[in-house]
Amino acid sequence: MKVDDSNIIHIDSGQPVGMFDSGVGGLTVLKALQERLPGEDILYLGDTARLPYGSKSPQTVSRYAVQAASALVRRGVKMLVVACNTASAVALDAIRAAFPGLSVVGVVEPGARAACAASHNGIIAVVATEGTIAGGAYHRAIERIRPDALIKGQACPLFVSLAEEGWVDGPIAEAVAARYLEPLFADSGGENPDSLVLGCTHFPLLEPAIRTVLGPQVRIVDSAATTAEVVDSLLQEFNMLADPGQTGTAHFLTTDDVERFVRTGTRFLGRDIARERVELVDL
Amino acid sequence: MKVDDSNIIHIDSGQPVGMFDSGVGGLTVLKALQERLPGEDILYLGDTARLPYGSKSPQTVSRYAVQAASALVRRGVKMLVVACNTASAVALDAIRAAFPGLSVVGVVEPGARAACAASHNGIIAVVATEGTIAGGAYHRAIERIRPDALIKGQACPLFVSLAEEGWVDGPIAEAVAARYLEPLFADSGGENPDSLVLGCTHFPLLEPAIRTVLGPQVRIVDSAATTAEVVDSLLQEFNMLADPGQTGTAHFLTTDDVERFVRTGTRFLGRDIARERVELVDL
Repeated sequence: MKVDDSNIIHIDSGQPVGMFDSGVGGLTVLKALQERLPGEDILYLGDTARLPYGSKSPQTVSRYAVQAASALVRRGVKMLVVACNTASAVALDAIRAAFPGLSVVGVVEPGARAACAASHNGIIAVVATEGTIAGGAYHRAIERIRPDALIKGQACPLFVSLAEEGWVDGPIAEAVAARYLEPLFADSGGENPDSLVLGCTHFPLLEPAIRTVLGPQVRIVDSAATTAEVVDSLLQEFNMLADPGQTGTAHFLTTDDVERFVRTGTRFLGRDIARERVELVDL
Repeated sequence: MKVDDSNIIHIDSGQPVGMFDSGVGGLTVLKALQERLPGEDILYLGDTARLPYGSKSPQTVSRYAVQAASALVRRGVKMLVVACNTASAVALDAIRAAFPGLSVVGVVEPGARAACAASHNGIIAVVATEGTIAGGAYHRAIERIRPDALIKGQACPLFVSLAEEGWVDGPIAEAVAARYLEPLFADSGGENPDSLVLGCTHFPLLEPAIRTVLGPQVRIVDSAATTAEVVDSLLQEFNMLADPGQTGTAHFLTTDDVERFVRTGTRFLGRDIARERVELVDL
């Protein structure tokens, strides 16, 4: 979807899939999308000048999210993935209202679906940012799919800083994970969660430390793979998949320092980001 | 200083001292100012919608800092205290250029002065945000006062998150402090720093954990008290002190959620912030 100067909407399968996050965390979703749909071009925006979103109010996050979506729509995207749990939790309606006709996919609903599929006993733990937990979006999304579920939520703001600092394993990461997680799994009567949703795109980096704290039995799920499935089926439904013969490329926009985006982004993507693929933009 | 619609500048001793920070950290400076100058009114702005500044580029921090200063000048302030090390390190020139005639005080120079006064052996450790350390502002400020000083800097981004989460003592805070600080004090030949500057307004909250790691010998200094001294002497110099008979009040502006500002601000100020003293503003 691209809105031109005469307010006419253009949308075609040759446009990239647009994605945004407050920073580099959404690259874990981009990675899953590229694995599932290697032919798609992707235009990714990281709003690093204003990160994090997770500690900010719903009003502020909604305003930032609509501005980010607008920057992508101006360049033309055939679909929009909100690759940020906080923005998915509070801003989907505002984005849809601002861009009628644009297909908008968040990461909360797919994450909730993954959790419901993983859980046998119906007790599900959710870790996310303060904003996501306070808004209760995962609770509502899980209850829609599985009304009998018992959901235990915990805000883990320090996980974000640990992931950005690269301290993703070792004693400090494990001590922080234990302090946040142990109260969720402290029921001696055996009624503990059997699955944990990583409800923030930063958290998959900390999975080794989380696994050490929880042991091998708890299923750990995140939104990335399930979100890629949703994008795949929507593109098929609208007949908007890219030419299957092509190899997709990714292009990146950032609202702050390009070098820093390349450096921290590489850690989240698990492979090098080429400097010339990253462009500084002002929202 | 207040600029009216006709671009005429008004400045008088009845105006408040203006202060800003990216969030609530600058309240540690406000507290020191109130202790030294209890008669002064203070207008404090916390740019919480865009915090933290410490991980952002100098260009972005300068832009945000000028916008914050502008909001205070529109309401009228007789002096501006940049109660944020990151903004003091990179944005003082931009603020002075934007508001000629306004007296602007940063916290880096006073912090450097406190460090030089505290150190006997001339070896000084500086902990701060990534932006402050990368810009080298403390190095330059200390070297101007004490050219023979040996300065060891370390960015400690997780200290900010720990202070905001309220995890300011105990094993996690101490483990993080040890990981950041021990390399600075690891010289077996005895040539270790004898003083440490807390070069971020969040860090004084972590002083107990830092003290546990460093032991009793190292002097720990921050900018708050020295900045209050500088403000005091400048106000005297310009004959702008408030009426000594009055009791000053503080009024607060925040760019995001007021309740959160009250809650986290209370921790930094060490006393309750009245809800009705806090106003939401949009920069």
